[in-house]
Amino acid sequence: MSRIFRAAAAQMGPTQRADSREHTLSRMIGLLEQAAAQGAKLVVFPELAFTTFFPRWILDGDELDGHFERSMPNASVAALFDRARALRVGFYVGYAELTADGRRFNSSILVDCDGQIISKYRKVHLPGSVEPRPGAKYQQLEKRYFGYGDLGFPAVRTDDAWGGAIMGMMICNDRRWPESWRVLGLQGVELVCVGYNSAAYDPNGGSTENASLRTFHSTLVAQANAYMNATWAIAVAKAGDEDGSGLIGGSCIVDPNGRIVAQATTLADEIIVADIDLDLCRQGKDKMFNFAAHRRPDQYKVITERAGVVEPVAVD
Amino acid sequence: MSRIFRAAAAQMGPTQRADSREHTLSRMIGLLEQAAAQGAKLVVFPELAFTTFFPRWILDGDELDGHFERSMPNASVAALFDRARALRVGFYVGYAELTADGRRFNSSILVDCDGQIISKYRKVHLPGSVEPRPGAKYQQLEKRYFGYGDLGFPAVRTDDAWGGAIMGMMICNDRRWPESWRVLGLQGVELVCVGYNSAAYDPNGGSTENASLRTFHSTLVAQANAYMNATWAIAVAKAGDEDGSGLIGGSCIVDPNGRIVAQATTLADEIIVADIDLDLCRQGKDKMFNFAAHRRPDQYKVITERAGVVEPVAVD
Repeated sequence: MSRIFRAAAAQMGPTQRADSREHTLSRMIGLLEQAAAQGAKLVVFPELAFTTFFPRWILDGDELDGHFERSMPNASVAALFDRARALRVGFYVGYAELTADGRRFNSSILVDCDGQIISKYRKVHLPGSVEPRPGAKYQQLEKRYFGYGDLGFPAVRTDDAWGGAIMGMMICNDRRWPESWRVLGLQGVELVCVGYNSAAYDPNGGSTENASLRTFHSTLVAQANAYMNATWAIAVAKAGDEDGSGLIGGSCIVDPNGRIVAQATTLADEIIVADIDLDLCRQGKDKMFNFAAHRRPDQYKVITERAGVVEPVAVD
Repeated sequence: MSRIFRAAAAQMGPTQRADSREHTLSRMIGLLEQAAAQGAKLVVFPELAFTTFFPRWILDGDELDGHFERSMPNASVAALFDRARALRVGFYVGYAELTADGRRFNSSILVDCDGQIISKYRKVHLPGSVEPRPGAKYQQLEKRYFGYGDLGFPAVRTDDAWGGAIMGMMICNDRRWPESWRVLGLQGVELVCVGYNSAAYDPNGGSTENASLRTFHSTLVAQANAYMNATWAIAVAKAGDEDGSGLIGGSCIVDPNGRIVAQATTLADEIIVADIDLDLCRQGKDKMFNFAAHRRPDQYKVITERAGVVEPVAVD
């Protein structure tokens, strides 16, 4: 079995609220076909890839539910699954999940080259708030619309088409939290897929962040966490102007040394590819980041004992 | 109280095994004076700043003990403490610690502008091995010469001279482990000081890393972990050729956005300074990295439950 395979990041340009599902799906199938034509066996789509980033609005009822998938696959996404299976290409895709018992998650799935869903993930690190921020033009209401992910960060060992890679998933904000990466790293992850929708302005209502700084942050965390866990990473944006709200691009493929080997240059639909040599993870995993030899969990207790900050008292 | 103060990284060039303590101390005092002349109130020296990086050799007896400090301060470092107190400058410095009961640690201390030791740290993440690597020209024997740090990662609230900063310490390899940063982040750290001696070649006997890549790694982890914990960081090298064994430079001061605001350009004794505005930590700590609002410790359990990797089984 070759331990090298080609993977693609399928960055998507903006999806407007008025865009039809057919239109969005045809764009995704076009990206899939471009990637397959370049030899990719894995295509990574963004977070909430089938819709606009709807948590920026206050929605309810049918208007809200229309953004959610009640099963996966389903009739409105089947064409993507069918085309991928015909091309013998697998994919990662993010979507809004509505369960039979009415729970909602910001989810992603990993679909192998046979069209089988081999792993599912529900976003753990939901940013934003439950209640709208007074006076803000755009909201960040993920905490209103989604429950916290309850599946952990599962890693899965894949088959020959992807070199037998141990793969894991994250969604958007998860990538800024080293815990997400470490939980996958502790499962020996060799390739992390992460889709995102990240505002090009300060998403918290502040004024100190712009698109350049926010793209730098996005790239920086992918690079460093890939290095610190000796894994490949593919981070993929939905980018550009969605109904007047800007999203950063900067989709990238990062090697286990934290180096960017491919990066998108537009804010539009764009395919980038790289050859993923899984054995490049070996040196880091066996030496510098040999966790069994060097980690000291007894010194980390506070990481799992509490969520928030407790500041030290003043020295007298 | 102003929340802005000037800090310096005091990168040191190489210290040869044959160099006298007096010679090394005079270099350190020279750096201290340069930093003070530029207005710095804090000077960060490297790991094991008073000696060569002796864990590259097999040593024992007096030859080994000569690299260790039996108390701090002591007569052979007093001139540095005295000069700093006279200049009203505080400092971080790394040294090899030999306790009264014979234990050995790779340690650092934080000394305030009154010359008082206000915090002490013992390196948690010891790289290398206990036994020498057969055939290697230079060893990495920190696991042989030092016990694992047993003081955790203590953060300390400092006084007016440093803007009341909450400060923490790491040593060298600690900076590559996001757990080190997170334990400090959970104490609200605003400035992390880390000294290092990092090989300019592959320290594990591999052949895929050179000085450029290793400097990139060093900078990358300081930047990303500073950003992910919304803290300033000052990372300081002992650099250059020590008895034929190369050490990287790249000492840097990083802001809470992960941006490098000052970086050394040589492999020699060199001062870089920056104005540390502690309030720049506020946006990250209150919003994107509001730990209490966004962290999910129940999903992180594995981080403290085990040290090493457990890979997933194959999908059938």
